[in-house]
Amino acid sequence: MKMKVLIIMGSDSDLPIMDETAKVLCEFGIPFRMTVASAHRTPERTLKTVREAEKNGAEVIVSGAGMAAHLPGVIASHTILPVIGVPLDVPPLHGMDALLSIVQMPPGIPVATVAIGKAGARNAGILACQIIARKDASLSKKLAEHRKKMAREVEEKAARIEKKK
Amino acid sequence: MKMKVLIIMGSDSDLPIMDETAKVLCEFGIPFRMTVASAHRTPERTLKTVREAEKNGAEVIVSGAGMAAHLPGVIASHTILPVIGVPLDVPPLHGMDALLSIVQMPPGIPVATVAIGKAGARNAGILACQIIARKDASLSKKLAEHRKKMAREVEEKAARIEKKK
Amino acid sequence: MKMKVLIIMGSDSDLPIMDETAKVLCEFGIPFRMTVASAHRTPERTLKTVREAEKNGAEVIVSGAGMAAHLPGVIASHTILPVIGVPLDVPPLHGMDALLSIVQMPPGIPVATVAIGKAGARNAGILACQIIARKDASLSKKLAEHRKKMAREVEEKAARIEKKK
Amino acid sequence: MKMKVLIIMGSDSDLPIMDETAKVLCEFGIPFRMTVASAHRTPERTLKTVREAEKNGAEVIVSGAGMAAHLPGVIASHTILPVIGVPLDVPPLHGMDALLSIVQMPPGIPVATVAIGKAGARNAGILACQIIARKDASLSKKLAEHRKKMAREVEEKAARIEKKK
Amino acid sequence: MKMKVLIIMGSDSDLPIMDETAKVLCEFGIPFRMTVASAHRTPERTLKTVREAEKNGAEVIVSGAGMAAHLPGVIASHTILPVIGVPLDVPPLHGMDALLSIVQMPPGIPVATVAIGKAGARNAGILACQIIARKDASLSKKLAEHRKKMAREVEEKAARIEKKK
Amino acid sequence: MKMKVLIIMGSDSDLPIMDETAKVLCEFGIPFRMTVASAHRTPERTLKTVREAEKNGAEVIVSGAGMAAHLPGVIASHTILPVIGVPLDVPPLHGMDALLSIVQMPPGIPVATVAIGKAGARNAGILACQIIARKDASLSKKLAEHRKKMAREVEEKAARIEKKK
Amino acid sequence: MKMKVLIIMGSDSDLPIMDETAKVLCEFGIPFRMTVASAHRTPERTLKTVREAEKNGAEVIVSGAGMAAHLPGVIASHTILPVIGVPLDVPPLHGMDALLSIVQMPPGIPVATVAIGKAGARNAGILACQIIARKDASLSKKLAEHRKKMAREVEEKAARIEKKK
Amino acid sequence: MKMKVLIIMGSDSDLPIMDETAKVLCEFGIPFRMTVASAHRTPERTLKTVREAEKNGAEVIVSGAGMAAHLPGVIASHTILPVIGVPLDVPPLHGMDALLSIVQMPPGIPVATVAIGKAGARNAGILACQIIARKDASLSKKLAEHRKKMAREVEEKAARIEKKK
Repeated sequence: MKMKVLIIMGSDSDLPIMDETAKVLCEFGIPFRMTVASAHRTPERTLKTVREAEKNGAEVIVSGAGMAAHLPGVIASHTILPVIGVPLDVPPLHGMDALLSIVQMPPGIPVATVAIGKAGARNAGILACQIIARKDASLSKKLAEHRKKMAREVEEKAARIEKKK
Repeated sequence: MKMKVLIIMGSDSDLPIMDETAKVLCEFGIPFRMTVASAHRTPERTLKTVREAEKNGAEVIVSGAGMAAHLPGVIASHTILPVIGVPLDVPPLHGMDALLSIVQMPPGIPVATVAIGKAGARNAGILACQIIARKDASLSKKLAEHRKKMAREVEEKAARIEKKK
Repeated sequence: MKMKVLIIMGSDSDLPIMDETAKVLCEFGIPFRMTVASAHRTPERTLKTVREAEKNGAEVIVSGAGMAAHLPGVIASHTILPVIGVPLDVPPLHGMDALLSIVQMPPGIPVATVAIGKAGARNAGILACQIIARKDASLSKKLAEHRKKMAREVEEKAARIEKKK
Repeated sequence: MKMKVLIIMGSDSDLPIMDETAKVLCEFGIPFRMTVASAHRTPERTLKTVREAEKNGAEVIVSGAGMAAHLPGVIASHTILPVIGVPLDVPPLHGMDALLSIVQMPPGIPVATVAIGKAGARNAGILACQIIARKDASLSKKLAEHRKKMAREVEEKAARIEKKK
Repeated sequence: MKMKVLIIMGSDSDLPIMDETAKVLCEFGIPFRMTVASAHRTPERTLKTVREAEKNGAEVIVSGAGMAAHLPGVIASHTILPVIGVPLDVPPLHGMDALLSIVQMPPGIPVATVAIGKAGARNAGILACQIIARKDASLSKKLAEHRKKMAREVEEKAARIEKKK
Repeated sequence: MKMKVLIIMGSDSDLPIMDETAKVLCEFGIPFRMTVASAHRTPERTLKTVREAEKNGAEVIVSGAGMAAHLPGVIASHTILPVIGVPLDVPPLHGMDALLSIVQMPPGIPVATVAIGKAGARNAGILACQIIARKDASLSKKLAEHRKKMAREVEEKAARIEKKK
Repeated sequence: MKMKVLIIMGSDSDLPIMDETAKVLCEFGIPFRMTVASAHRTPERTLKTVREAEKNGAEVIVSGAGMAAHLPGVIASHTILPVIGVPLDVPPLHGMDALLSIVQMPPGIPVATVAIGKAGARNAGILACQIIARKDASLSKKLAEHRKKMAREVEEKAARIEKKK
Repeated sequence: MKMKVLIIMGSDSDLPIMDETAKVLCEFGIPFRMTVASAHRTPERTLKTVREAEKNGAEVIVSGAGMAAHLPGVIASHTILPVIGVPLDVPPLHGMDALLSIVQMPPGIPVATVAIGKAGARNAGILACQIIARKDASLSKKLAEHRKKMAREVEEKAARIEKKK
């Protein structure tokens, strides 16, 4: 299966959040594959999924995980593709554990970490597009338009609030 | 000035740490420019520096900042290039403030955050190379070799430790 | 539009909290304008809004933001008016990220930070009045009376609790 | 003694930090008085010092304190002048305790909180000037010039760093 | 009004928690008075309430407060009676701010701090009894019996759990 | 050996800090005994030491411990004397672990917790005196004088600082 | 009563979580006993329960506790059996207090700490089995099969997610 | 090489700390092997080292790591031997990141976590002995004697402190 982005999460309970990444990729027309693999319960499957993604054209891997979130770092240890890590907001520590487990990677194997939870999952999709856009001028244009759209939305909200007063 | 990476820091006191990024880029033969701009003290200069970098071929921007580290996010708001943020270890909160100020970006404007301090600055360089390598096969090869070199170094350290016992 | 205070928030979802600031200004009869602007999604609009406020007589700017809350600091970088920052309680970190992103400003560009969330939004209004009162003796009187009113309310509550026993 | 700003600290060991506030006020030509009073050890003296400052023309009070830093809040409870709180970096919690003790004031009595330690002490001085400048146009001019000077300094640092490479 | 313990809280919204202290004192037959006073909104009333309590025979003061919880420390600065501080669980920081504001008192003025919230309010009552028991042998006996009762309750719970299996 | 206070620490490395408590007791003329016992390494000795202290007239027990600081709570479980806990500043968590391990006692067994480290150890001594003073009017007088002395010291420091300017 | 594992919790309100440990032991056919004992309310009962467990063949003790969670450490001080500690998620600090109180044991008396709450309680059961399996080859086999079952479950979830897209 | 314990660390810079584990094993006469392997830089080597240890008789694996400390969890995913994780105190977060990365393992793959740094490394050795002692009665005896020795040391320290006074 051809793809530009592999989205890989530690558990299917992470799907509602990681769907935010998928939605962004759909908006921007980027083909992707989304699957589940566990750094700890299926280390072999994790490696195999990464290798297949590399063969099928993946340019970026997005990985979400909660608690002691090792999945993004373990994936990063198996590939030189850029890996984006999304710390998930799982109780009781609400993603502070996942954030530190993902961002504090030792020298040599980076993980590009984004915000905890839904905001981060959405930004992971945009960051993936920004990376892919380095060799796709039409995607760059779409990203620039998306920025303008966001600005217009802010202006519309501002107008509504100012009218109310 | 032609460049692939712009390294931009909030203060010249950040230089000893951000030099780690520069060293990695030198190792991998990536042309870069390194400068100082403050999100707060020189907002115009920050914007101008980003625009020039875009014109001069920058593919990635690496930005380090401490305390209420707004610089990477402010840069990201001005460009669709991937922006890598390095939280700096400044007392008294030792980078926890910078980490949260960089990674917790709201939906729409991602910053690819790496570890606090020196480890993060080094990883920012490697992540920049991983992104640029998406359109540079020879750089991909160098990254793969770098991984092997790191593995060999671990093995040599292991041999030294095992001998001692 | 003439105003003494500009209230500016990062997103319209912040309105229910930032309305607390507006309510205080209404109580004290201070004209204000309330709008939305994003440090990251609309950097130009943010600057324009600040410039207009300066022209229209603003004495203080109150800005609320959540997560990596750059808005108050970015505003402060564009004006020498006193800027009051309200860290908003957004999950999952509940304002700890916003507090550090607002209060830990580097030397040169202060943001007057108040408590996280509703209490802070209310206090932002009172602090704005305290600043404006420096050239408005009648406002000083109102502030002094407000203190007495708060004291009376505490005494009434005390009386109710003591009676119950 | 005529003054515009009262600087009041909890202990004379806070002097090296709070001197940063004094230096800024000297730079901007603002008359001030600096003294020691403890919220807990000398509650009466604290009140008396505030009353005298009010009589002698103080427009702003800056107060630094460490640990369970009650001094700024206690002062704020005795005056309607704007009170700026500087959390001090005292081991073992390095100002995190002071920050929360100062910024998390309940509704009704705000304290304008700045960064922990030296950066905050300096910013307290600038914020005090920004408040006083609301009725002093020449001070406004000095603040605008100070901003330009800071920008020039950043540009000089940038030039030095760029030359080195 | 004769009393052995003064219970004083910052706001009537703290009553459901501080009632736990009252309940313990009722169980042990200790006369007490419960009231509201704010360190910041009614500094004079706080002082007056403490002075009256001293005159009316108070042996211990229990004070609960949330956020920047200055009340216990401010009370302690006005009396040499032992002051017990109960940090209250108020969002968004859930008592971590109150705990540090109460426990981190500077040398010279201690506050005997107990756990955050309901558990702490109950323990404040028991600690007050333990202090009063130093001159009341019959209260000592009651405290010893209370310990035995708690032990029996644990044993009954253990029996129920073991039976279920 | 007759005593009013038992000072008990988890390790002899805690002595330089717990000596602060001893110094206060010396200043106020309170007989005490100071010893080492470990909640975990010598549970029996801990119990025996507490029993002996009870027999020899102890009115208060002060206990300092670092890391997972169980000692104060374990002592409190063996006596109905008031137990004061001093969290010690041991790396790497610098007393935050000890603070939570001491203060967050479950309902039924309170520990009167004071500040982390040296400030707390000193305050433990004063709090012990405040408790003992409930049946010793001359000690009450000394405590009141100590307060005045602290106030005078603050005033002297204030005078020195004001002269310098 | 013959048993391999003693599960001991501080309060019967901990049962719904500690039942996770029991379920794992049932799955693996390990005989266990489950009871309540409090480090603070029933120190003697705690010791007695441990001694009985040792006599009745216990190989591992699992102990769950919340807040200032001393129970696992106190148990560990009375036995040389491996003790597994489960920090429980009790408001307001949601297990961060319990985690530090359990894991930060001083040198000499270890507690094998697992994750906060339900995940930790389940893992405590598996860790107990891994320890017992050191002298039970058939249990080792079951653990290996359990790993395979977990891997299959991940694969089934992956298949479901991939089909949906 | 025959061994009972494998000690495996992420970097040779961890040696001074992990040597504490080795010292304990020497004291108790437990054969062990100590080596370096990185979860991220040498994932294959990590797996191979674990397999060899299993073949050579390892009963327990002790693994120390700092920052985003994935090594203990990655090892645990490859074996059903009990894995003990030692979070290392690496700046700037001083082991808080490592603690959460090690202890917060998801359900199914436990890591027995001990204290941060030196205390934890020592306790990892003792915990390993406690596990091995389940099938080695003479080791049980040594552990019991070690407890007595620790108790005697506490008593000697107590004696020294009491004499001084």
